[in-house]
This record gives sequence, structure tokens and C-alpha cells, in this order.
Amino acid sequence: MTNPVMLQHGKTKSAIRELFEYGLRQAAIVGKENVYDYSLGNPSVPAPAEIADTIRELMSMEPLALHGYTPASGAKEAREAVAADLRRRTGDDIGPENLFFTCGAAPALISVMRALAVEGAEILLLAPYFSEYPVFASTNGLKPVVVPADTSDFQLHADQVEPYITPSTQAVIVNSPNNPSGVVYNRKALEELGALLTRKSAEIGHPIYIIADEPYRELTYDGEDAPYIPAIYPNTVICYSYSKSLSMPGERIGYVCVPNCAADSAELYAAVAGAARSLGHVCAPSLMQRVISLSTKLRPDIASYDRNRMRLYMELSDMGYRCVKPRGAFYMLVEAPDGDSEGFSEKAKELNLLLVPADGFGCPGFVRLSTCVSYDMILRSLPAFRKLMASYQK
Amino acid sequence: MTNPVMLQHGKTKSAIRELFEYGLRQAAIVGKENVYDYSLGNPSVPAPAEIADTIRELMSMEPLALHGYTPASGAKEAREAVAADLRRRTGDDIGPENLFFTCGAAPALISVMRALAVEGAEILLLAPYFSEYPVFASTNGLKPVVVPADTSDFQLHADQVEPYITPSTQAVIVNSPNNPSGVVYNRKALEELGALLTRKSAEIGHPIYIIADEPYRELTYDGEDAPYIPAIYPNTVICYSYSKSLSMPGERIGYVCVPNCAADSAELYAAVAGAARSLGHVCAPSLMQRVISLSTKLRPDIASYDRNRMRLYMELSDMGYRCVKPRGAFYMLVEAPDGDSEGFSEKAKELNLLLVPADGFGCPGFVRLSTCVSYDMILRSLPAFRKLMASYQK
Repeated sequence: MTNPVMLQHGKTKSAIRELFEYGLRQAAIVGKENVYDYSLGNPSVPAPAEIADTIRELMSMEPLALHGYTPASGAKEAREAVAADLRRRTGDDIGPENLFFTCGAAPALISVMRALAVEGAEILLLAPYFSEYPVFASTNGLKPVVVPADTSDFQLHADQVEPYITPSTQAVIVNSPNNPSGVVYNRKALEELGALLTRKSAEIGHPIYIIADEPYRELTYDGEDAPYIPAIYPNTVICYSYSKSLSMPGERIGYVCVPNCAADSAELYAAVAGAARSLGHVCAPSLMQRVISLSTKLRPDIASYDRNRMRLYMELSDMGYRCVKPRGAFYMLVEAPDGDSEGFSEKAKELNLLLVPADGFGCPGFVRLSTCVSYDMILRSLPAFRKLMASYQK
Repeated sequence: MTNPVMLQHGKTKSAIRELFEYGLRQAAIVGKENVYDYSLGNPSVPAPAEIADTIRELMSMEPLALHGYTPASGAKEAREAVAADLRRRTGDDIGPENLFFTCGAAPALISVMRALAVEGAEILLLAPYFSEYPVFASTNGLKPVVVPADTSDFQLHADQVEPYITPSTQAVIVNSPNNPSGVVYNRKALEELGALLTRKSAEIGHPIYIIADEPYRELTYDGEDAPYIPAIYPNTVICYSYSKSLSMPGERIGYVCVPNCAADSAELYAAVAGAARSLGHVCAPSLMQRVISLSTKLRPDIASYDRNRMRLYMELSDMGYRCVKPRGAFYMLVEAPDGDSEGFSEKAKELNLLLVPADGFGCPGFVRLSTCVSYDMILRSLPAFRKLMASYQK
């Protein structure tokens, strides 16, 4: 007598985790150095040394205050520190009252989803999308509607989004830099999306929000920054996590930011707080809130991710693979030479190359490589990639 | 266009938090030492010194491992350490595969609720109950059904539960030591409940689970331990938090334990995992998982809670208040002399005594005092309690 949907979500492991666990078993047989695991998005650059220093210093604080409850939205000093940083970086009038700390980006997203989950509500997922979005939406009162990927450039094209908007559309998730493509949506694309949503919101009589899922915001290359979306389209809510930017994905700390420019900002913020409460949110981990409040100036060391990205992109392209050039995050999509991503992933597996079929990301025909790996592993894996391509050229 | 239920849960502050915030404002006017705040259940005994030592030592660990993702269920070493401790204490065959770490007891409870939320499902709340239960249940697919409190002794009486069981009853939440009453359900009461649920489960053709919500498990006085419920009634799932026992409520670490003896144990565990995923659970905070795995032998220092409890109970009883003697946790119920708890709380407020009306705990006519306060505040507050009683005796 368990809920069949929950049971199914508990039993079906993600393709990513299946491959990762296969890799661990295979490593025990052929040796760790002979398994080339591109499955997980676990940062390979350690947290900045300042984090450990800050935690050490905080240990002299009074433990009742350090480990005690904070307000549900977060300690005021943490919200103030992050708001000040956001003001500096964006010029927007973000204050502590716009921020709601959460246990990472996933509950942040779900809180916003639940806040918008009115009867019949739909949410647009722009393929390729993070593979958990459909689970999050469908189990929290929203119908996920997929806008297929434009595999010519993996950019966002407003004209391709338009046909999927209905009177029930409550939000569009914009994940840029994108997981799994590494693409950063450019300003023009976002402006066109903003214009479309403004027009459509007026047409259907209620705002369509952009939910900007931005855990990779600081991970961009080639000097290409991810634009601040509320400045382009005001009805935007930001979901953020420190998992990737500070390399502490296990610590579960992130936030929702509802800027003042968003329609019904205060009401939406209250609904997000109520939704978080309904998810069992009490506060974000208190020690980590303090760490964040003292670390807003830290930026990730992206040099090694950049080196990985370029090396893999160039080597694989030279071998004849069609790769989507990443401009951000730490993933790369590679097309299956014969269009069959499952088969491609299986063949790769025989060579101990672990590549995740991107079908679960709404992108069949491609596999996802996490490039947050050791550079050395990349070099060691190149012969296997060559062999793999040769097997398609026979 | 926000969800009206989420908006309402975001806008309505709990009576507890309202009072607490009033106290902060009042303290600014009359001085902190003249406000007697019995509102919040925030531990007043600091975390054991060993916690800070452990965190300091962990700072020499490799940060990628320390702050990285763990499996959704928790790091194996943490689950193994806690399982070993539970085996030692209960004699039950708990293994790491029975444990699922969560961000505290609230999401643990909600994960179990969602796992059991089949069409039309009902969950029994035994009054007095923790005031968030109705919100958690009703927003996660279960209809909360309240079994009224027996205010003669605040114990659990199976015969009073029986009339509320229907074919849709999926679970009963048993919170002992109890918030807000401080009562510890005795073995006989639990055995009678177990016998009732065994009989009723057979009658309706599916198991009725006990959800044992046990954040106060280690906080018992007078040598009265809280019995291990799965040994009394096998279809029991435990939700636990380290918030109160290790005085780190802000750190959000707890677990669900589905023991092997529970009906469909493996399936229920999988459904809990799926439900957690649907709530945005990725893993419990990784640093704190390690802290817990090294701290399973620590027990709370309950001496000061015990002293507070006895002093308040004796003093207030002597003044003529009817108090429910707490045997565990750190709360005490006091009856409104004229039966009007809201009026009682209001009159108390005029004397800067902050007492939460227990109506939200399913116990009208009483107020809740959190006894996790400073002993000194208790002493300072006694004249106000005397004045308050005098105002009823005019």
C-alpha cells in the first residue's frame, strides 16, 4: 500500500547513477585507472581553502548560536551578505527580504514550482534539460511540457517555444549555463524569450515566470558571462546553489531569489515560503549559512574545468565526433555517430568509457560527458575514444 | 496566480513564531531580562564540546570527499555507524540498508507520508500533536484525522483511537516523548495500540503503520525510557533528528529507519527514497553526516532540562496552576485557569510572559511552555506567574 509513483521514483535509478555504480564495480575488476568515468557532475576542483579556514574560525563561536535554528528564510546576516553581493554584481535592488535560503537548488526549484502549482498548471522544460525536472514538476502539481532541443546550435529560440505556451503555462525553466549541453544562452535569445513571454502573459491574462536555475552561473569560459535575466525579463525567479561554484554539493545550501521586479513579488515570496514549509523545510544548514555569509567574494577556480573542456572538445572533434562546444558548466554533449545514443553508450562501456545517454535530458541521439574529471583521466581515455570511433568506421 | 494553499501557509506564521517575534520587539522596549520567553523549542544546552572538536579534525580531510555528494540515503560509513548504535541499543537487526538520512525530522516525516499517500489515505494524529503535522499531511496527499487528547492523563489510549480507524487509515503518528505535553507513552499503552493496529490491519486488509517521530528519544527523566516501538509493533517506521539530542537544530540532520520487521520493508524503503527525491532531497548535509558517524556515542546533557522542568512544575503547581508533569522532551502544558487558552496567553503577554496557546497542537484550553530556557529566566519569571494567577482569583 505504498504510493506507486513514489515507489517507481525510488526504484528507478537514474541512468547517471547506474553507470557510475557500474564503473565502481568495473574498477574493482580492471583497475581504477582503466575506467574512464564521465558520468557524474561531482566537482573535481576542491572547495577553496578559505572555506576550511572559515569553518575552523567559526568553531570558536558559541555553539547554541552556531548550530541553532535560523529563521526559515535564513539568518539575516547571511541574507544580507548575499543580497549585497548580488546588488554589486547585478545593479538590481536585491535585499535580504528577496532571498530565501534552501537546502540546495533542488528544493529551491520545487518550492517555486509548488508556489505556482495552480489547477492544471503547466511548466515548460527547454530541451536539453536537467533530467530531474520532469520528476520534480510531475510530483509537485505541475504538468511538464517539453520544448524539443534545437540540435543545430542548442540555443534558446523563442519562436520554437511559442507553440508550447497555453493559458495554463505558469513558468519556463531557463537553465543557463546548461546541464547537459554546456551552452550559455545569449542575451539576444533571452531578450526574444522575454518579449514572447511579455506578449503571451498579456494574452493569457497572468504572468508567465522564468525560473532561472543557475547553479553554474559562475562557471563560464571564453569571457562569456551568463546575463542577469531579471534585467531582461522582470518576472524571473532565481534558484541558486553553492554546490558547483564552491564545490560543496554535499552541503546542501542554495537559495531562491524573488526580485522586486517580479510580478506580485511579495506574494510569490510568501507562497515560496509556504511551499518550502510543506516540503519540510525548517532552515538551510546553519553552519553553512554562516560560511556562505563570509564567502560571498569567493569565485570558483575554473581553469582546470576550462582545460578539460578544451582538450576533450578538440581531441574528440579531431577524431570525427560531433561535439557541442561548451561555453559554461562542466558537461559536453557528443552525438552518437549512428544516432543511437543507447547503443553508443553500450559500446563505450565495453571500452570502460562511461558516457550517459542524453535521452533522459530530452536529447536522444546524444551522450553527456561530465568534464569535471581529472585531466589525467582524459588523457588516458583518448585511445578508448579512438577505438570507439573506429568501430563506427568499419 | 500562486497556489492559494501555499500562499496561506507562507503568510500564516505559527503562533509560536508570532509570540517569539513579539518577545524580541518587547525586549527592545522593556529590556531583555524582563521578557520571559517560553515560546520556542530551541535547545538551551549547547552541543557537546566533542562536536566542535570533531568538526575541527574533519577540516584536515580532503575537501572533495568531505563536501561532495553522498548517496541519497547517506554515506555508507554514517549509516553503518548509526545502524551499529541502534543495534546495540535495541537488539534489532538494523543495517545501513534500513537507514535513509534526511535534512532533519520534518522531511523524514514527509517522505514517509508521501510514500504512504495512496488515493484517499488518512493519517491519525494523536492530540496533543506537533503543530506542523496537519500542514505536512494535508499538503502531501494525506487527510489528517485527529484523535482528541485525553486531558486526564495525556497518555495514549487504544480504545480512544479505535473509532477513528477506517479502511483508508495508512498510519498513526506516535510522538513520544511528546511535543507539546512532555508525556512519554508507556509500554502498556503502546502494546494496546499495537494489538489494536494488528487487529485493524487484518480487518481492513493492509498494514497500518506507526510513524514513530522521535526527536526527543534521549530526553527522558526519572529513569523512564521511551520504549523501542518496532519491538512492540513491527509495522513501525522511525523518524529521527539530531536537532534536540545533540543541540544542533539548525544543521538539519536526521533519518528515516525502516526496520526489517515492518511489512513490505524493502518496498516501503524504496518508496521513502522516491518520495524524498520528489521533495528535492539529494543528500543530507555531508559534513554533518560525518560528524554524526563519529558521534553516535554522545548523549545529551539533560541535567539542566530536568532542573528546569522540576522547578517550573513545582512552582507553578504550588501557585495553583494545573500542570501536566513532563517525563521527557522540554515542554510543559499548563491549563488556562478559566479554560480560555487564547485569553490566558494574552493576559500572560501583558506581564511579558510568552506562553503559546496549545490550540494549534490540538489541545485547546492549555498553553505550552518550552522549558529549554535559562534557569535564571525561570526564577525571574515566577513573580509574573504569581501575578497572572492572582488575576484569575480576584
